[in-house]
Amino acid sequence: MQNKYSRRANALKPSEMRLILSSSERPELISFAGGLPASELFPIEELKAASHAVLTDHGAASLQYTSTVGYIPLREAVIERMEAIGIQSNLEQVMITSGSQQAIDLTGRVFLDEGDTVICESPTYLAAINAFNAYHANIVDVEMDEDGMKMDALEQCLQENPQAKFIYTIPDFQNPTGRTLNLARRKRMIELANQYDVLILEDNPYGAIRFSGTPIPPIKQFDTEGRVIYLSSFSKIFAPGLRLGWICADEEIIEKYAGFKESADMHSDGLAQRITEKYMELYDMDGHIETIKAVYRERCTAMLDCIEKYLPENIHYNKPEGGLFIWVELPDSINAGDIALKCIANNVAFVPGAPFFVRGAQTNTMRLNFSNSNPELIEEGMKRIGEVLHREFQLVNESIEALAK
Amino acid sequence: MQNKYSRRANALKPSEMRLILSSSERPELISFAGGLPASELFPIEELKAASHAVLTDHGAASLQYTSTVGYIPLREAVIERMEAIGIQSNLEQVMITSGSQQAIDLTGRVFLDEGDTVICESPTYLAAINAFNAYHANIVDVEMDEDGMKMDALEQCLQENPQAKFIYTIPDFQNPTGRTLNLARRKRMIELANQYDVLILEDNPYGAIRFSGTPIPPIKQFDTEGRVIYLSSFSKIFAPGLRLGWICADEEIIEKYAGFKESADMHSDGLAQRITEKYMELYDMDGHIETIKAVYRERCTAMLDCIEKYLPENIHYNKPEGGLFIWVELPDSINAGDIALKCIANNVAFVPGAPFFVRGAQTNTMRLNFSNSNPELIEEGMKRIGEVLHREFQLVNESIEALAK
Repeated sequence: MQNKYSRRANALKPSEMRLILSSSERPELISFAGGLPASELFPIEELKAASHAVLTDHGAASLQYTSTVGYIPLREAVIERMEAIGIQSNLEQVMITSGSQQAIDLTGRVFLDEGDTVICESPTYLAAINAFNAYHANIVDVEMDEDGMKMDALEQCLQENPQAKFIYTIPDFQNPTGRTLNLARRKRMIELANQYDVLILEDNPYGAIRFSGTPIPPIKQFDTEGRVIYLSSFSKIFAPGLRLGWICADEEIIEKYAGFKESADMHSDGLAQRITEKYMELYDMDGHIETIKAVYRERCTAMLDCIEKYLPENIHYNKPEGGLFIWVELPDSINAGDIALKCIANNVAFVPGAPFFVRGAQTNTMRLNFSNSNPELIEEGMKRIGEVLHREFQLVNESIEALAK
Repeated sequence: MQNKYSRRANALKPSEMRLILSSSERPELISFAGGLPASELFPIEELKAASHAVLTDHGAASLQYTSTVGYIPLREAVIERMEAIGIQSNLEQVMITSGSQQAIDLTGRVFLDEGDTVICESPTYLAAINAFNAYHANIVDVEMDEDGMKMDALEQCLQENPQAKFIYTIPDFQNPTGRTLNLARRKRMIELANQYDVLILEDNPYGAIRFSGTPIPPIKQFDTEGRVIYLSSFSKIFAPGLRLGWICADEEIIEKYAGFKESADMHSDGLAQRITEKYMELYDMDGHIETIKAVYRERCTAMLDCIEKYLPENIHYNKPEGGLFIWVELPDSINAGDIALKCIANNVAFVPGAPFFVRGAQTNTMRLNFSNSNPELIEEGMKRIGEVLHREFQLVNESIEALAK
């Protein structure tokens, strides 16, 4: 049979990530690889009650085909949650999606023709790169530091790419770096977007999980021209398995998203939408998020302590104030991909940072997830990573000494 | 702000269908418009028990991120169901999708570059046309008759389009026509696909809902070269709100679908997948389908009787042996779109056939859904359609007479 695949399908590589994530299913292995929330915090009993109530009161409606843009009371609850962080919106500006992953994908469909430019952080969320690549986008990355995307570098990038469609940013506790875009830069980003007539795709799945420091308003709060498309999700604050996220944007833009969602999957799971809404009606979502934050704070601290205790000295890492990830930079001479494989042999997993770069991959970087392991597992796992790293550093030093002779 | 949309988004038209479907939400209106299963048959109590069992026994796993290709026991159940209709497959050949709508959309992603040719029936499923159009496909339609796509016309089409990627067909109780591809043509279609080196996308959401006549094997049963991609769904036999469908195809093809599903929505709702599997474990899915068939048989018969009783004489319609739809052809001079609007004013809705045609729309056609109304509503609704049609036929006759004078 002749090759029938599309160019994008022929270009598809077996996902490195999936390999690492699948090997991390071995029970003896401690995994800091995925971006998984702590499953022991899922409010299972409350979900049982919510699903019983939904099926009792609205069984038929929750199982039938339903609206593409989403269940109205759930959209109302989303509007209320966004209002609490300073984003004003109405029903026509909010659409429910099948996780915010779908919102990212549909963004490609709404805005990208082949060769269109998307500006993103370096590094950035891998599955967003993959989604934009499926639309044959030209992805241009902009340097970051501890305070997020650098605005001088962004301005230069906008000058060099005057036809760019949008800036993709994860402002709070970014995946993979855990970094947060500071307030001054958020204001500057919207100024630049207005000046250079470009949209902003603000992807904010982690913002609600701030466990220290002061909250920073979302970029959307400073949007006076309807050019920020705001995405968020129930995955990190509630349950990722239900695949529920949302988009908040101008009515006309939402109308385009809805047109394409119709041919992508018709609508998101109606039962899951009603269960999630019922949970928020019957229980205290904010209280639940406080519980998550307390646990993640403890786990993040435990991991930072273990980095000090078990990892070699000449590495660099950040101290995130929220989210799920710590970003570690090893000396330039160390390849974190090799380390990851050796770690798996030593029954501990993490994700190397390289795949998160569009180009100029920093192969010495690693993403550590702290949300999905308790402090005991973090202690043991970090000890194992430390063993591998100390061995590797020793080898590198020996070969440098040998070369110097 | 400059227009930032993609070409496909700029070409997006407000969906006629959505207008009709939304107006059909008025309570006083009887609707034969949607493709909705009978919601009074949803096994709500059983679903309550299944969801309670899943959350009790596997709460955390059902709410956490899970495998992109789907929950293994659900895929095993799908394999068993397909085996019962003569399709042999294994776990690597089956992937769960967010409704079969997602499978159609991902097919575009896996196979279509801009300008690539897709061959389909005339008319065909509207949301498939929209999905392929989002990939800038060249959609070529092939004439049908009561026995489905005509094979001489298909062969001519393959000769004229030697680079066609796949044939899209809905072999059983097609949407919108309710027609079924006969056995001889199925065998011929696979012969032609082999000869002209083209794939077949066999979309079979309705096949299990055969309420009279003899089942015909799926095309996939005759596939010796791995060129049939078979799609089906739990929407019509269980609950469309849960958005669960599946793809069965060769391993290598499934691997491509999985790669793109990852960036489309990561995975389908894990709780819904486990509830559906648990339902099949605890209860009798085949018995449930027998109930659906008995009810749909009665409703289909009621609607056919009403066509005889209330609609004008010089119309043509088919007598489907399953599925959800009857296809009515009015005299050429009658525009079913106008009739649809007049019917809505008379509190009854159906979908005109024209949007289901890629080109050369037969504007005199109408799609009637019988699954979602009981016989009393069918009687009253068909009476209302009859009133509108008799009035229209009268007007047309009068103007013909006036012209003849």
